[in-house]
Amino acid sequence: MKFTKMHGIGNDYVYVNCFEEELAMDPGRLAELVSDRHCGIGSDGLILIKPSAVADFCMDMYNSDGSRGAMCGNGIRCVAKYVYDHGMTNMTTIRIETLSGIKTIDLTVKDGKVRLANVDMGMPVLLSQGVNRELTPEVRKEIADSEIWEVLDVQDKEMSMIHISMGNPHAVFFVDDVDNIEIEKIGPAIETHPRFPDRTNVEFVQIVDESHVKMRVWERGAGETMACGTGACAVAVACRLAGYSQDKVDVRLLGGTLTIFWNPDNGHVEMCGPATEVFTGEFNV
Amino acid sequence: MKFTKMHGIGNDYVYVNCFEEELAMDPGRLAELVSDRHCGIGSDGLILIKPSAVADFCMDMYNSDGSRGAMCGNGIRCVAKYVYDHGMTNMTTIRIETLSGIKTIDLTVKDGKVRLANVDMGMPVLLSQGVNRELTPEVRKEIADSEIWEVLDVQDKEMSMIHISMGNPHAVFFVDDVDNIEIEKIGPAIETHPRFPDRTNVEFVQIVDESHVKMRVWERGAGETMACGTGACAVAVACRLAGYSQDKVDVRLLGGTLTIFWNPDNGHVEMCGPATEVFTGEFNV
Repeated sequence: MKFTKMHGIGNDYVYVNCFEEELAMDPGRLAELVSDRHCGIGSDGLILIKPSAVADFCMDMYNSDGSRGAMCGNGIRCVAKYVYDHGMTNMTTIRIETLSGIKTIDLTVKDGKVRLANVDMGMPVLLSQGVNRELTPEVRKEIADSEIWEVLDVQDKEMSMIHISMGNPHAVFFVDDVDNIEIEKIGPAIETHPRFPDRTNVEFVQIVDESHVKMRVWERGAGETMACGTGACAVAVACRLAGYSQDKVDVRLLGGTLTIFWNPDNGHVEMCGPATEVFTGEFNV
Repeated sequence: MKFTKMHGIGNDYVYVNCFEEELAMDPGRLAELVSDRHCGIGSDGLILIKPSAVADFCMDMYNSDGSRGAMCGNGIRCVAKYVYDHGMTNMTTIRIETLSGIKTIDLTVKDGKVRLANVDMGMPVLLSQGVNRELTPEVRKEIADSEIWEVLDVQDKEMSMIHISMGNPHAVFFVDDVDNIEIEKIGPAIETHPRFPDRTNVEFVQIVDESHVKMRVWERGAGETMACGTGACAVAVACRLAGYSQDKVDVRLLGGTLTIFWNPDNGHVEMCGPATEVFTGEFNV
């Protein structure tokens, strides 16, 4: 099976062009096989690039445990780069079908190759204090500080968070020095806190200035990872709500930097970042 | 750059056929690049297959941190499989030059492909009690129990070990249940014990019967790994010396099983195991 290995700031998948390749087995089982970092190709999962009846292309993703994934911000940038760089389209605005709906990606092209991809990640939702409130431009203007924050009792310590959904939930905490937190201890304590019956992703953010922040992420079910696209979006929204940042902010993760823009006109969050093709190969499946 | 990804019971390297490929950069730097499991190909290191003036082939290996490696039992089986399966030789006994000398590998071939490779790993050396004594057939016959063992004080607990060198040092400990040891705590405590100024690899062994043992390994500088060829050899020697096993023993590691034979005639240790080609690729270097 021919494949291409790509990553978006360290979030790496095996990409298979299903316009040309036929899978030899169930995609979930194949995802488990290819993801193995010692005996397989090694990746966070498998992404199939397929035709779509409702958009330009379809992204069908599977996690390393074989489960189906809905959407991945770092992955979809790579899909967009793949289809453009491999001549499958010459458009620089591409609509891609995912299990979380159709996403629109705008490409920055240089010397015939995609350098950056900007993804419309949709409207954030406030979850703090148990609400489920779309952060429309109107809501965002009128919302009070007292509604944004929620205090959580973690290991006998009171910690303030902003809880945001970008399709999946993110508990965002502000810290002075993100490099010196005991994420292996505090991450799982928050992830599995009784406050979150379905668990939550956890973000720790350090404000550098009003257009730069540093973050680390503890992903639900995966532990600390190098990059989380929806997490970076939730962080940018939380920073803006808290008054720490502007609408556009560079979010530095362990794997690289994403530029997040919370558009005040339509309330959508846009994520812009690189996508990298590392190697192509033929897997002995 | 064309490459092949192979593994020996989970110990995985990127293999480059230098009869055909020319490296674009210093091999140490290239090893760092390709080894990166998220942004590179992902491996424990880089192994170059080269011509040799003194043997059939030369194996030139680099660790994931760019340092040069001397020899790897799991890697050399893959080199032997590569040169045979790719038609670079039709011999089933191959001599391969390494920084630890010339190694002889015997191949088991089925349907034109190498299934198993048997490597002569040389003569073990006893290090217990600070000696440095080659375990020749004669020494092995006459050695007393009191010379084999050494007691180590680890975290206020007395633990008996057998310390063996297979080119690199291995402190072997026998336990009742290898699945339930706190290797993340006890491994580093032994690795960095004042008894070992140059640190040591650490093995924990559970005897199943006299021809089967289970082990886990804490590698010097790397932590727990799925497989360590010299560690499996040291374990088999320690088991035989302690009277727990026969000359030939199946050693089950996390990544798979190696059959180790301590030849009573010449004193050499032979390691037999599989080698697997996973995929071929072209790296954008």
